[in-house]
Amino acid sequence: MEERVEISILIDMYGTLLTEKQRDIMNLYYNEDLSLAEISEINNTSRQAIHDVIKRCHKLLLEYEEKLGLMAKSTADENIKQKLLEKLTKLKDMETKKDSKIIIEDIIDIVDNI
Amino acid sequence: MEERVEISILIDMYGTLLTEKQRDIMNLYYNEDLSLAEISEINNTSRQAIHDVIKRCHKLLLEYEEKLGLMAKSTADENIKQKLLEKLTKLKDMETKKDSKIIIEDIIDIVDNI
Repeated sequence: MEERVEISILIDMYGTLLTEKQRDIMNLYYNEDLSLAEISEINNTSRQAIHDVIKRCHKLLLEYEEKLGLMAKSTADENIKQKLLEKLTKLKDMETKKDSKIIIEDIIDIVDNI
Repeated sequence: MEERVEISILIDMYGTLLTEKQRDIMNLYYNEDLSLAEISEINNTSRQAIHDVIKRCHKLLLEYEEKLGLMAKSTADENIKQKLLEKLTKLKDMETKKDSKIIIEDIIDIVDNI
């Protein structure tokens, strides 16, 4: 996965563990694609200070993932979901009875919303 | 949920975010059911020091749950899983074709291991 995308996902997952200011800066840099110069102007601080916050938070987010593994779990869950949907669709195509088809569609709906 | 059970689950979920020493003390108190006096003897420190660690970590664990909500999500996931298993079992009982039954059993296996 591209590093920028990975960090953006980690901000979504662990952003609440950062301070509001840290989260804002990370969002501006990784999600809004602002430059260090632009973010330092918004925060009325130096480019170096912003650089340090981003570097520290980047490290923090990777540590949270190493300790809690929510991104890895989310990827694994998505694979299971796709596998289930594939099998349910096959089952639905094979099914001829209307009442069984309705239950299968109901199950597909639930899995789709996981 | 009983508070002791809740804290025990939170230790499982967020224990990696505590230091090794904090995690050990929390495990001894909440999972091994040792007294403050016993834990303070093991750690060669005062009963008050152990009390403070437990109080601080208790607060930390509740804050992590407030921020990340992994316990709430786990309960919601378990409810979805039970709902899916219920519908799949009903579908299996209605099914007459052998090849469809095999696929349903396969799906039940996957859901069971979520």
